[in-house]
Amino acid sequence: MAEAPGDIEQLIDLMARLPGLGPRSARRAVLLMLKKRGAVMAPLATVMAQVAVSARDCARCGNITNSELCEICRDERRATGELCVVEDVADLWALERGGAFKGRYHVLGGTLSALDAVGPDELRIPRLVERVAEEGITEVILALNATVDGQTTAHYIADVLTASGVSLTSLAQGVPIGGELDYLDDGTIGAALRARKRF
Amino acid sequence: MAEAPGDIEQLIDLMARLPGLGPRSARRAVLLMLKKRGAVMAPLATVMAQVAVSARDCARCGNITNSELCEICRDERRATGELCVVEDVADLWALERGGAFKGRYHVLGGTLSALDAVGPDELRIPRLVERVAEEGITEVILALNATVDGQTTAHYIADVLTASGVSLTSLAQGVPIGGELDYLDDGTIGAALRARKRF
Repeated sequence: MAEAPGDIEQLIDLMARLPGLGPRSARRAVLLMLKKRGAVMAPLATVMAQVAVSARDCARCGNITNSELCEICRDERRATGELCVVEDVADLWALERGGAFKGRYHVLGGTLSALDAVGPDELRIPRLVERVAEEGITEVILALNATVDGQTTAHYIADVLTASGVSLTSLAQGVPIGGELDYLDDGTIGAALRARKRF
Repeated sequence: MAEAPGDIEQLIDLMARLPGLGPRSARRAVLLMLKKRGAVMAPLATVMAQVAVSARDCARCGNITNSELCEICRDERRATGELCVVEDVADLWALERGGAFKGRYHVLGGTLSALDAVGPDELRIPRLVERVAEEGITEVILALNATVDGQTTAHYIADVLTASGVSLTSLAQGVPIGGELDYLDDGTIGAALRARKRF
């Protein structure tokens, strides 16, 4: 009465753990893979196994890389003295897609959270303090998410770094480009109004 | 300026080909895998490689299996003389989850489609005709989807099997269990009304 052979059930269970996929869509994904065993499934398995072995955290900034240091930390042109602090690699990728930042990053690996018992030592905060002292950093940009946990973490980091005398900045808050006021939440409209600038 | 190392980009591209995942959600899925390399990524790669090698189509019915014949075809208790014709393995799984059918299946592998140039020989229709003759089949249940292509295929199969004298049936159409009339399309309500039965 089993629907599928054991290893296929196991594959569906594992796929269902990925974000964006539930049990139903994991089953559909596995069925497509089974239809395209040569074109999708085999290469996917190969690349995945390879990445599982080769990927590691950059020893300096915490970005994902295949070497000791990531591409950005190895790039001497990016030693601008500006350090952008982000929660996660996803945020680093988002900033890189924007292409506006030319300095280096520091990936915390999460936010402080009393609920999940995440303290400063679980994140890369001690390493951030060392880097600010060692790398001639002049400005630390706190690019943390505009959530409660993100902002708590930003304030904690600001406290810790005050003694170093480094300049601390954060991302501007306001209306997104292309955004319509009617669809924005009150908090964003309030922040954009408070930070209004001369036209 | 590359966001991620090459093999990770490749993994994101491959994941984005799965149904239900676009480029954004593929990236999120890969980031989760990178966070849980040991618990998710490594086992996923292993099971996927294993399935890519071991999975094949049942030589008799077209179901997915690890052996020459699938579990259902090997189960002698299911040689009931009833054969349920479905489009895809997904449909077979759905019927097995229901648990109401005790006979065997025949998976066509798709539907006839003039647009996609799928003729009877691209599907397992010739094999179906052979099976009806060889296996002492008394009833063929056409459990094809209630779509135009599904119903075209059902009519074609009915034509081909008429000469064999086998009894041909199809799934009942009507209101789904728990369904609310207000949310049903007109076609379903019409079909349910035409097929009404004594209370």
